[in-house]
Amino acid sequence: MSSTADTPETSSPPLAREKSAASYTYDNLTGWKGVRILRIGRGMYHDVRRRLPYYWSDIREAWTYRTVASIIRMYFVNILPAIAYTLDMHRRTGQFYGINEALFSSALAAMVFSLLSVQPLTIVGITGLISLFNYTIYDIINIYEPSIYPQFMCWVGIWGAIFHWVVSLCNLCDYMRYVTDFSSESFGFYVGTIYISKGVEELISEFKNRGHTAGFMSCTIAILYFLTIYGLETIGSSTAWRPAFRGLLADYAYPLATIFWVGFSHFPGPLQTAEISRVPVSRAFYPTQPRGWLVQFWELDTKWVFVALPFGFLVMLLFYYDHNVSSLTAQARQFPLKKPAGFHWDFFLLGCTTFISGIVGIPFPNGLVPQAPVHTDSLTVYETDLRIIPTEEGEGAEIRRPIVKATAVVEQRVSHFVMGLAIIGTMTGPLLIVLHTMPSAVFAGVFFIVGWGSIGSNGIMQKVIYLILEDRFVQRDEPLLRVSNRKILLWIACQLITIATCVAISETIAAIGFPVLIIALIPFRVSIIPKWFTRDEIGVMDDMTANNKTVLASLGGPPRFPGETRSQDEYGLRRRYSERKEGVSRQRAGSIHR
Amino acid sequence: MSSTADTPETSSPPLAREKSAASYTYDNLTGWKGVRILRIGRGMYHDVRRRLPYYWSDIREAWTYRTVASIIRMYFVNILPAIAYTLDMHRRTGQFYGINEALFSSALAAMVFSLLSVQPLTIVGITGLISLFNYTIYDIINIYEPSIYPQFMCWVGIWGAIFHWVVSLCNLCDYMRYVTDFSSESFGFYVGTIYISKGVEELISEFKNRGHTAGFMSCTIAILYFLTIYGLETIGSSTAWRPAFRGLLADYAYPLATIFWVGFSHFPGPLQTAEISRVPVSRAFYPTQPRGWLVQFWELDTKWVFVALPFGFLVMLLFYYDHNVSSLTAQARQFPLKKPAGFHWDFFLLGCTTFISGIVGIPFPNGLVPQAPVHTDSLTVYETDLRIIPTEEGEGAEIRRPIVKATAVVEQRVSHFVMGLAIIGTMTGPLLIVLHTMPSAVFAGVFFIVGWGSIGSNGIMQKVIYLILEDRFVQRDEPLLRVSNRKILLWIACQLITIATCVAISETIAAIGFPVLIIALIPFRVSIIPKWFTRDEIGVMDDMTANNKTVLASLGGPPRFPGETRSQDEYGLRRRYSERKEGVSRQRAGSIHR
Repeated sequence: MSSTADTPETSSPPLAREKSAASYTYDNLTGWKGVRILRIGRGMYHDVRRRLPYYWSDIREAWTYRTVASIIRMYFVNILPAIAYTLDMHRRTGQFYGINEALFSSALAAMVFSLLSVQPLTIVGITGLISLFNYTIYDIINIYEPSIYPQFMCWVGIWGAIFHWVVSLCNLCDYMRYVTDFSSESFGFYVGTIYISKGVEELISEFKNRGHTAGFMSCTIAILYFLTIYGLETIGSSTAWRPAFRGLLADYAYPLATIFWVGFSHFPGPLQTAEISRVPVSRAFYPTQPRGWLVQFWELDTKWVFVALPFGFLVMLLFYYDHNVSSLTAQARQFPLKKPAGFHWDFFLLGCTTFISGIVGIPFPNGLVPQAPVHTDSLTVYETDLRIIPTEEGEGAEIRRPIVKATAVVEQRVSHFVMGLAIIGTMTGPLLIVLHTMPSAVFAGVFFIVGWGSIGSNGIMQKVIYLILEDRFVQRDEPLLRVSNRKILLWIACQLITIATCVAISETIAAIGFPVLIIALIPFRVSIIPKWFTRDEIGVMDDMTANNKTVLASLGGPPRFPGETRSQDEYGLRRRYSERKEGVSRQRAGSIHR
Repeated sequence: MSSTADTPETSSPPLAREKSAASYTYDNLTGWKGVRILRIGRGMYHDVRRRLPYYWSDIREAWTYRTVASIIRMYFVNILPAIAYTLDMHRRTGQFYGINEALFSSALAAMVFSLLSVQPLTIVGITGLISLFNYTIYDIINIYEPSIYPQFMCWVGIWGAIFHWVVSLCNLCDYMRYVTDFSSESFGFYVGTIYISKGVEELISEFKNRGHTAGFMSCTIAILYFLTIYGLETIGSSTAWRPAFRGLLADYAYPLATIFWVGFSHFPGPLQTAEISRVPVSRAFYPTQPRGWLVQFWELDTKWVFVALPFGFLVMLLFYYDHNVSSLTAQARQFPLKKPAGFHWDFFLLGCTTFISGIVGIPFPNGLVPQAPVHTDSLTVYETDLRIIPTEEGEGAEIRRPIVKATAVVEQRVSHFVMGLAIIGTMTGPLLIVLHTMPSAVFAGVFFIVGWGSIGSNGIMQKVIYLILEDRFVQRDEPLLRVSNRKILLWIACQLITIATCVAISETIAAIGFPVLIIALIPFRVSIIPKWFTRDEIGVMDDMTANNKTVLASLGGPPRFPGETRSQDEYGLRRRYSERKEGVSRQRAGSIHR
């Protein structure tokens, strides 16, 4: 009796999971069988075998309110930045990529990944980095032969796809298990910086293209849009009103703020006459340029086909990090996930979408930072519990504190799928016109709030705040107290120097090489960091980005850093301390992190 | 030996104070001697006698860093809103009052009150209410005979002065001891609302007069100015960096933000070409209108002289409340003041400045809310102490909290005096030109931040937040838990209805009558409130605005509410609770109040 009660209803075949989790490993294999890259397709096979039994439950368990809230939230959080980046790309790639391409790409990714991926929680779409990538290639191509840009991008996609397939077939995603907060925080910070600087650029272009009135009005709207969402999410994370009501405010912060400020920009009077720029739309379902959807890639000169090869490799490198880290953070430690991950299979799938995107001439989609963890967050059932800390001041003295607990995640495919349908809906004529009513200023606001969401709660920021705070008010059990301030500074400096370098080259033609820099953080962490910091210091400051067993199962088990024998439980002292004190941290702009 | 050590060096003649504090009372007097209004000048005499022995120490003790910080802070906090209100008055009184009049009035008030007043902490200057008063009279006069406005205002001042003198000679300021938080919070909230709405009006006038570009740019600057000061003051109230450094940030928040944003508005490019409006200045030391400084009041028709009488009475009524409440809040409970107050003498002095202002045709100055308490705050030496609360969770477990203590106030005349000198300096040609560089947008920002300073930390706001918060996270020893939510709502409703009425009539010609409404709150609190609320409820929700012995000495001792016999220590349970928990609250925009 008791053994059946222990089997949770949600996780259908626990035995199969246990078995498969154990079976994808190279630990006890010898000879060629132990050589990862020779075992073609082994990771993919295990990924599918591990997850397939859950497919039906991914649909059956979706019918909850959280799924509805998640669809609406993710529709806004996914599509608003995608459109925003497209506005930028549109200007900077000779109008090749437009709104229709962006929507097509987002819809394609959502359909493919919601239906076929192993981990449907990883939201896939258009990132700022691919936009940066696309216009940097445009800048390079423009020097030689502007007219070949579409075909060239197509070949970049084809080569990129081939590299994706090679990587996934050779089980190379396994190395993602070495990703710790050291590099994923840096990446998040870098992406956040790019977001915010894009927001500023959006406002500057408003001044340039639409005049000063439009420019200043856009600044005002962007700032107020930011403050609106920040305020709503802060209230959502507070203890105001009942949990259900404040939850609503946070769930619908994006729709509420977007509808309000878009409407605001249409008020008659100075607001309307300012003629700020709005989303440029073209005929529904047709490419922005007068062309068919299929790019005539066979017309490209062979020389250029091979020039596209290293660019394809860089696309793969970018996505190897970006997509897999998105997936890792979407399955990060704080989420009580039960269903297994599948990095190899999903990366193979990403090769397919890259291929299709190349062929039809749309931006290549990939996993979104920071939207992917926001998706999981929106599906997580949180409970704000009351913690009573008895104090020694008089009888019955106590301190009452809210503590946030993540009790469950609605793990399913429906939210991703319906969000994809909604994007397809947006591609139709009538809804394109709705899109056209949106001022660019709102997108600048989106950049600010999503960017800040990635920076404000970042571990780098937490360490900076710790360093700033006056020492005597720091709780004595704070683990960072065990590390000298000099060492904390060195740690942050390593991260910030990388970020600064990436941001700096993002402004130049060398931007094309930034994936190399970002990826270099992983071996740097594995081989250099242990020489500069003691085990205890690393234990306090660093943590596995995802240490859930079901996640590591797809990566061949937990990582082993050279020269270290301890278990991964020795990491993340800082995180565990803060979770013990205040509960898990949420993926929201107004979340409190101390 | 020990008795000399007990005598604090700062309070020179303690014996004289004790004696005088006891000697101004009507408690044990019988016959005509017990009738307050028959004892002409008794209050004034005791005020001077009580304070005069401290005069030399008011100068001698001023030479500290706090005085310097206070001078700079108060210069900005006093003069920026004064100029801002004058911009409004200038437009709405047919250009009669201009910057020169405002500066003259502020300088006159600062000189007279810093040198001659009993309580130099009460900053005197131009308030929003006198501006409202002046242009409402202009609207009324405009219906009949626009040309007589200067002479009419002069007579309003003369009558007002006479009523001031009558009130102070008849010891009527004594009734100010009945002012509790019930009415002073309402007044603060009302003033804050007026400030913020003036800020909005300033921005609207920018759209109307300077076009949309200037309008939107002004909005942007005003919002960012607000956020800058709010941010700096929040950091100043946090535990970031060392106390000395974060203190600097808060001390110089106004100068830093003002210099930055004024400079910002002058950047070449879109900012400069927006041509936002700046402070209009005229020839230094001359009236704005082509007239001499002396208003030819003898040329006014006798009929109008007597029409001015009720207006003069209303001015007195306004100042009776506004000036005395400013003074009370500048000497409020949280400040550890040692030197005695003097309401009668100061009100007499206010009559004199009103008279002079009338004669020379400048706005009548009076005590400033919320600047007066900000002055005392800027002179207060705060210490952020560490409180360790031992908890019962394991051995050595504890919670560390900052607790703010006000250890002393640098009670002196120099800050008020030097600030006055600085205003006189501002009246000179070169500095008027500096003033001319300031955009109106910055003033809108000043309105927002000063207004919010008066609303955000208001007791009404605190009760609203208490009602909003989810019940289970409220500490069990919170005194408000002893009052039913219905009763708290009723209490706030009484306050908010008064505020709403005042705000509503402020927009009409009936604005002239709002002092009557505000003053009516005092008898309402004394006679109606005790019928609706129990003693315990009042004890939790209300508090004496000032209960310092040295303050009450000037008002004939502590108040006695009809039918109540308890001591005033039974009031202010809520305030004492929060002070025990977090220390005293500061008069800053970013102060934390829970």
